[in-house]
Amino acid sequence: MSKKWVYLFDEGNTTMKDLLGGKGANLAEMTNASLPVPPGFTITTEACNAYFDAGEQFPAGMWDQVVAAIATIEKRTGKKLGDPANPLLVSVRSGAKFSMPGMMDTVLNLGLNDATDAGLAQLTGNERFALDAYRRFIALFGRIVLDADGRPFEDILDKYKAQTAGGKDTDMTTDMLRQIVVEFKAEVHRQTGQDFPTDPYEQMRMAIKAVFSSWFGKRAVDYRNNQNIPHDLGTAVNVQTMVFGNMGDDSGTGVAFTRNPATGERKLYGEYLMNAQGEDVVAGVRTPHPIADMHKELPAIYDQFAQIAERLEQHYRDVQDMEFTIERGKLYMLQTRNGKRTADAAVNVAVDMANEGLITKQEAVMRIEPKQVEQLLHRRIDPNARLTVIAQGLNASPGAGSGMAAFDPDTAEKWAHEGKKVILVRLETSPDDVHGMISAQGILTARGGATSHAAVVARGLGKPCVSGCEVLLIDEDKREFTVAGTDYRVQEGNLMSINGSTGEVILGEVPMIEGDLSPKLKTLLGWADEIRDLGTWTNADYPRDARRARDFGAEGIGLCRTEHMFFEPERLPVVQKMILAKTDEDREAYLAQLLPFQRSDFEGIFQAMDGCPVIIRLIDPPLHEFLPKHEDLLVEVTELRIKGNNPALLKEKEELLGAVELMRESNPMLGLRGIRLGITMPGITRMQVRAIFEAACNCAQEGVVVKPEIMIPLTGHVNELKVARGLLEPVAQAVMEEKGITVDYKFGTMIEIPRAALTADQVAEYAEFFSYGTNDLTQTTFGYSRDDAEGKFLLKYVEMGILPMNPFQTLDRDGVGKLVRMGVELGRKTRPNLEVGICGEHGGDPNSIEFCQMAGLNYVSCSPFRVPVARLAAAQAAIRYPRS
Amino acid sequence: MSKKWVYLFDEGNTTMKDLLGGKGANLAEMTNASLPVPPGFTITTEACNAYFDAGEQFPAGMWDQVVAAIATIEKRTGKKLGDPANPLLVSVRSGAKFSMPGMMDTVLNLGLNDATDAGLAQLTGNERFALDAYRRFIALFGRIVLDADGRPFEDILDKYKAQTAGGKDTDMTTDMLRQIVVEFKAEVHRQTGQDFPTDPYEQMRMAIKAVFSSWFGKRAVDYRNNQNIPHDLGTAVNVQTMVFGNMGDDSGTGVAFTRNPATGERKLYGEYLMNAQGEDVVAGVRTPHPIADMHKELPAIYDQFAQIAERLEQHYRDVQDMEFTIERGKLYMLQTRNGKRTADAAVNVAVDMANEGLITKQEAVMRIEPKQVEQLLHRRIDPNARLTVIAQGLNASPGAGSGMAAFDPDTAEKWAHEGKKVILVRLETSPDDVHGMISAQGILTARGGATSHAAVVARGLGKPCVSGCEVLLIDEDKREFTVAGTDYRVQEGNLMSINGSTGEVILGEVPMIEGDLSPKLKTLLGWADEIRDLGTWTNADYPRDARRARDFGAEGIGLCRTEHMFFEPERLPVVQKMILAKTDEDREAYLAQLLPFQRSDFEGIFQAMDGCPVIIRLIDPPLHEFLPKHEDLLVEVTELRIKGNNPALLKEKEELLGAVELMRESNPMLGLRGIRLGITMPGITRMQVRAIFEAACNCAQEGVVVKPEIMIPLTGHVNELKVARGLLEPVAQAVMEEKGITVDYKFGTMIEIPRAALTADQVAEYAEFFSYGTNDLTQTTFGYSRDDAEGKFLLKYVEMGILPMNPFQTLDRDGVGKLVRMGVELGRKTRPNLEVGICGEHGGDPNSIEFCQMAGLNYVSCSPFRVPVARLAAAQAAIRYPRS
Repeated sequence: MSKKWVYLFDEGNTTMKDLLGGKGANLAEMTNASLPVPPGFTITTEACNAYFDAGEQFPAGMWDQVVAAIATIEKRTGKKLGDPANPLLVSVRSGAKFSMPGMMDTVLNLGLNDATDAGLAQLTGNERFALDAYRRFIALFGRIVLDADGRPFEDILDKYKAQTAGGKDTDMTTDMLRQIVVEFKAEVHRQTGQDFPTDPYEQMRMAIKAVFSSWFGKRAVDYRNNQNIPHDLGTAVNVQTMVFGNMGDDSGTGVAFTRNPATGERKLYGEYLMNAQGEDVVAGVRTPHPIADMHKELPAIYDQFAQIAERLEQHYRDVQDMEFTIERGKLYMLQTRNGKRTADAAVNVAVDMANEGLITKQEAVMRIEPKQVEQLLHRRIDPNARLTVIAQGLNASPGAGSGMAAFDPDTAEKWAHEGKKVILVRLETSPDDVHGMISAQGILTARGGATSHAAVVARGLGKPCVSGCEVLLIDEDKREFTVAGTDYRVQEGNLMSINGSTGEVILGEVPMIEGDLSPKLKTLLGWADEIRDLGTWTNADYPRDARRARDFGAEGIGLCRTEHMFFEPERLPVVQKMILAKTDEDREAYLAQLLPFQRSDFEGIFQAMDGCPVIIRLIDPPLHEFLPKHEDLLVEVTELRIKGNNPALLKEKEELLGAVELMRESNPMLGLRGIRLGITMPGITRMQVRAIFEAACNCAQEGVVVKPEIMIPLTGHVNELKVARGLLEPVAQAVMEEKGITVDYKFGTMIEIPRAALTADQVAEYAEFFSYGTNDLTQTTFGYSRDDAEGKFLLKYVEMGILPMNPFQTLDRDGVGKLVRMGVELGRKTRPNLEVGICGEHGGDPNSIEFCQMAGLNYVSCSPFRVPVARLAAAQAAIRYPRS
Repeated sequence: MSKKWVYLFDEGNTTMKDLLGGKGANLAEMTNASLPVPPGFTITTEACNAYFDAGEQFPAGMWDQVVAAIATIEKRTGKKLGDPANPLLVSVRSGAKFSMPGMMDTVLNLGLNDATDAGLAQLTGNERFALDAYRRFIALFGRIVLDADGRPFEDILDKYKAQTAGGKDTDMTTDMLRQIVVEFKAEVHRQTGQDFPTDPYEQMRMAIKAVFSSWFGKRAVDYRNNQNIPHDLGTAVNVQTMVFGNMGDDSGTGVAFTRNPATGERKLYGEYLMNAQGEDVVAGVRTPHPIADMHKELPAIYDQFAQIAERLEQHYRDVQDMEFTIERGKLYMLQTRNGKRTADAAVNVAVDMANEGLITKQEAVMRIEPKQVEQLLHRRIDPNARLTVIAQGLNASPGAGSGMAAFDPDTAEKWAHEGKKVILVRLETSPDDVHGMISAQGILTARGGATSHAAVVARGLGKPCVSGCEVLLIDEDKREFTVAGTDYRVQEGNLMSINGSTGEVILGEVPMIEGDLSPKLKTLLGWADEIRDLGTWTNADYPRDARRARDFGAEGIGLCRTEHMFFEPERLPVVQKMILAKTDEDREAYLAQLLPFQRSDFEGIFQAMDGCPVIIRLIDPPLHEFLPKHEDLLVEVTELRIKGNNPALLKEKEELLGAVELMRESNPMLGLRGIRLGITMPGITRMQVRAIFEAACNCAQEGVVVKPEIMIPLTGHVNELKVARGLLEPVAQAVMEEKGITVDYKFGTMIEIPRAALTADQVAEYAEFFSYGTNDLTQTTFGYSRDDAEGKFLLKYVEMGILPMNPFQTLDRDGVGKLVRMGVELGRKTRPNLEVGICGEHGGDPNSIEFCQMAGLNYVSCSPFRVPVARLAAAQAAIRYPRS
């Protein structure tokens, strides 16, 4: 007996998402809950994978099971596929484990041919409806299954619409539709060289193949890459009896959420259109009505729907995103799924539901994608900015974005790859636009409502979106838009902005400010704090950053970079003189000038972090970074030499060039920097340690609780640390003696060189703490210079699937992670109470934070705005991987 | 009871070198063999370490044991320390486990003061001798124990010598010596502010302290660093009854080897001086006579000595380096130790002794320092060269060297650090010159024989040396030498050469040729081949290198770098056009032009390596290495812009500059190169693979046995290899099909990125072999850019002891080695028959080869001239660490 490839809806349930996909599992669940679901069946994801394994052939037995399932449906509905007397029409839809809205293909009205269409007209007494269904089917099947170009079908439709008074779909006459069907079939023949298939079983076979194949379509692959969805899950195929929202004015279709997906408000939210099929709502072709209107227009059906919605939310314990159709006054549920929502809504819903008792606090914490929290904090338009608002659309996805206007997705993607910021402007979006949406800072459309393709995808991607801005007059040929009734004009490449929270379209780039923690987010993060094991520290170089991070919940500073202080304009000339000093005396004199600056910096930091540990990293970059660039000097000197008109300046510049040339390195990342500098030119770090301890003692004398931790960068061999400690601890002791006060301090090291991790047992002899500098550790473990790699091959590697992700964003567990684990284990073998953290960019990345939980780190440290992300991600990691 | 710190000579034996030092153990062994050894005792190395541990205080009980031992010696000799009636005089010498000739301090004639010296004069009836001994003692004790400057003593001596007719030591009268003693004591007082110590026990106490302290003297530390001798061994102190070679014409002293230390010839070799103390021979102050002359002059003593020498060589089963003294016609043996010898002699002695049955073949193999083998192969002066020989000295240490003349060791060291080659020219050398000798390509002295300090140390260091070149007139002030009787003049910084094998001094730099395998070396290496587990392959890019390596015993090519071929002058323009091509068609056309070149290169290699595996690495360096340098172009373009006189050339150069700027990288070592290039620009590697397989098939058709192995550089992630294999194997298959012949081949990768080693289990899925590129692996594991590090901090790190050795020369076992071991283990877990080798420079380094044996590698690959070194080192490693 062959494997079971096909499940009737009443054979499945919601736990079978791997096998039946999300949509199929939910249709099964609803069917079994006796909700009004049109009968149907699901072809499994396994069948999809078997199909690809066999070189795009159905696996043995699958087709027979499909035929048998059709027979069962026929029995249940009394209709028959291909029977003109009572034709069964079905939809064929993809349905993967994870929702990929609009990414894959759907065929509606399958089963129609000239004969069944005539039968449908007779049965319904509505020839216009039957012809409308037929022309939709031909166009959709032609485009999706037969790979025809869709544009000519639209052109034909537009031609006839132009002949009507109103110019809308519903204005077309029956005769027109009959003529359109003929022309559509001719168009299919013109494009494909073959007749439109009339056998419904042949249609079915071809449609299933098309849905399977759409799994590896470009948009689907792009979407999965962006969302980190594995490519080997496959899609299920749902075959379901058609019901029709376009059978007249007692029919309709709609989509609705149980709570507002933009705000989380507990109130039905959605849209519907009478005498329409679902695609009309989603595609944004006609502007639908708010769901609340249905309460007045169809009170009984509204009440039935509201009850079902409540039941579904309780059942699934989450916001539901539902599709429904009303066929001649009868309500059918076509789909339910957990609703995508904005970050704001996600937080509000989770906290509300926990407060309602529907879910636990742990579940609430698990409900939020940590990345969503970042959206809440970032990028709002400065409320004090003067804006040139040129148009108003729907606030379809919150947040704000600025960039160059791009009028097609390829341009948007190209510019984004070049590092430019882009706003994608479209009449409306379709799944073919997704790569452009992913690349854009925001999306602006002229058509479509709050559940249009643009709005749904943008919310899913966390991108700002203004949709349905109908005053925009987009000229795709000229690559520009104007605003109706105004003189405003935005051409391709012009800077513009959108505010997805208000629906405003704004001229030029706008100043952004950072966001804040809402009260519900504070509640949620409070719950996270109760759960997590990992400390959440911050990387902060300035007191203002430190204070902000504390507001966001930071418990310490994991990385305070001292060299940023060297770059400040009043200090840089002194730093340069110090570097170029010809005698030790001169150098010490310049260092003495720098000391008060550094001391006051540290005082500010210690005050801001009163009571918290502060890890201060001693100077790290190579000294030539503080000097003018070699090539600039080279050009200057060459020019001065040839002109010969300023010998004094030439001499000065030549000397400087000579000094820079002595310091130049072929691979500065791997050169004289970090502890190597501290050992070969110890004056700088001695000055820094003096400044740190003078600041710490001064603060302690004022009652501030200071916990300085001195961090040595770039250690590769334990002896470096031994020597550095020997140089620096006497300075610390001397300062504390001078000041007559003692402060607790630690001495430790970055682990950012593979050798340090490999020999961590030795390194820990001289280090009281480790802090993983995973930026550099990733560079050295992969042998990548990030500056060079990302532009030249790394992003291509990610695109080609050679790397599963960009290892500078998400910690590479197999390679870098192995070193991290080795370092932790070896280090703790020598020093069981070793404090271990991470201060690379990965410290704010949820996936990497999960790894840190698993590897037994004490804390993660990240930029201030990521601290809330880290609090949430750390809690989720603790739930997934509890420490024993 | 306190620990035993002191051993009488008859309480020790030769196995106790750790405790008694080499000299002490051998004196004990000789004493117990009833050889004529003046009685004495040894203070242990443990006492030395305890002395330093206690802050330079004798450990408890040590002094009492010294006093007791003196009492025993007094009983055995009938003499008494400090007794004017029959004074006991002793020498106090250092003696570490490993011989460090001249590196540490010796005090002779200890026990003398005015009273005992008068007694000595009376007893011997030779006042002149007694005064001579006394003045030597005061100067030596003053300099070594009291830390006085030695120069004034010499000046006093010179002053009196100048008053004599002959001007030699022996020409000085008794009165003069008496006056000298007075002046020496005054000089001691002048310099130290205290009287010369008269109590022999006080002298003894101070001398022992001085010898202990000399263990951490600068020259001793430098020498140990150079020779990789640990610093924690400590030195023993030998106290021995003095015998006197300067008691008249029936007395003398000498040193001799049982076989010729320069050639290995089985014949007594050495020198002696009558009426002299040992220091006179070693210091090269008077020119001694060949030992063979003693046969005529003192036949009975010569026979006795020859018999003892034979007995000692049989006893120790190795060449002995002996010191003896004849006191009034009686022979005393003062020391024996294994003789240092040249590389040539070492090989000849080892093979001879094995053939004589004195040692086994394994022992013979263990007797040669692998580095010595390299000396035999390298650097002889081209016999066809026309040389300007300006002087002739003694051929004191073989080999030849060229460099800039330096007249003091500090200059030699400084210049060597700057990368210059140096010949150190000295009147004579002393232990204070050793750092300069280490830095030099060769050493030239005007005074001193074949066993002078310069000769002994140079042979030990493996440096060429010409000594005793008395025609050199060195002017240290003018920093130049002239050659007596000629117009030749060499000033500081002038280029010159020496031939230590012939004794020639040559003007200018001379052309060198490489050496060859002597018949005895071939025999020895044949024995090594029978023993070793590791294959010895070679790194060779050209057929001529491959052939030479096979002559030296290479069993395969472990690394053939294909990019060297791109740099040849006829090809580089095509390579540049290929790189700068604007279309794929153009690029393919240029690649097609390169194909025949590469194919013919590979044909030559396959022919040379008929029957052996040949690992060919595909293109590795970043493409900008093949283009003009960015800064040169920048200067050119700037000049052209300002001059404005050649707009066409300016445009051309600007375009080139633009192209180079696009390709520039901030850290090219970690940028777009290796497999990253192969994947992003696959045309080049496809061309290379085609060339390899066309060459392999062509050769195979001619009957050559070809075993190509395609090696991918810089793999960091298994997927890179998967993709590369997918790109390249179809090319290999296509060529073999076109040619109608199949060749066996392997596909594998360099392991030179830490991540590749960390994930070797994954990498091995797509690699049939691993080759450790330990140069790059060291760079990435340490985070060092070798180009930058060695000049800027690495050598300083080695000097400071932060790194125990330069990790680019000797593989770092703790860090890099850990990755190597992980890679081998993980790789073989996936693919048990994985072929693993090493092709970094470490493949020719004996210490690293030992590690390769321990880590279970299949082969090492090194430059052709190091193949014999590797054969020997691999055999020694197999003996030390046998594989089960």
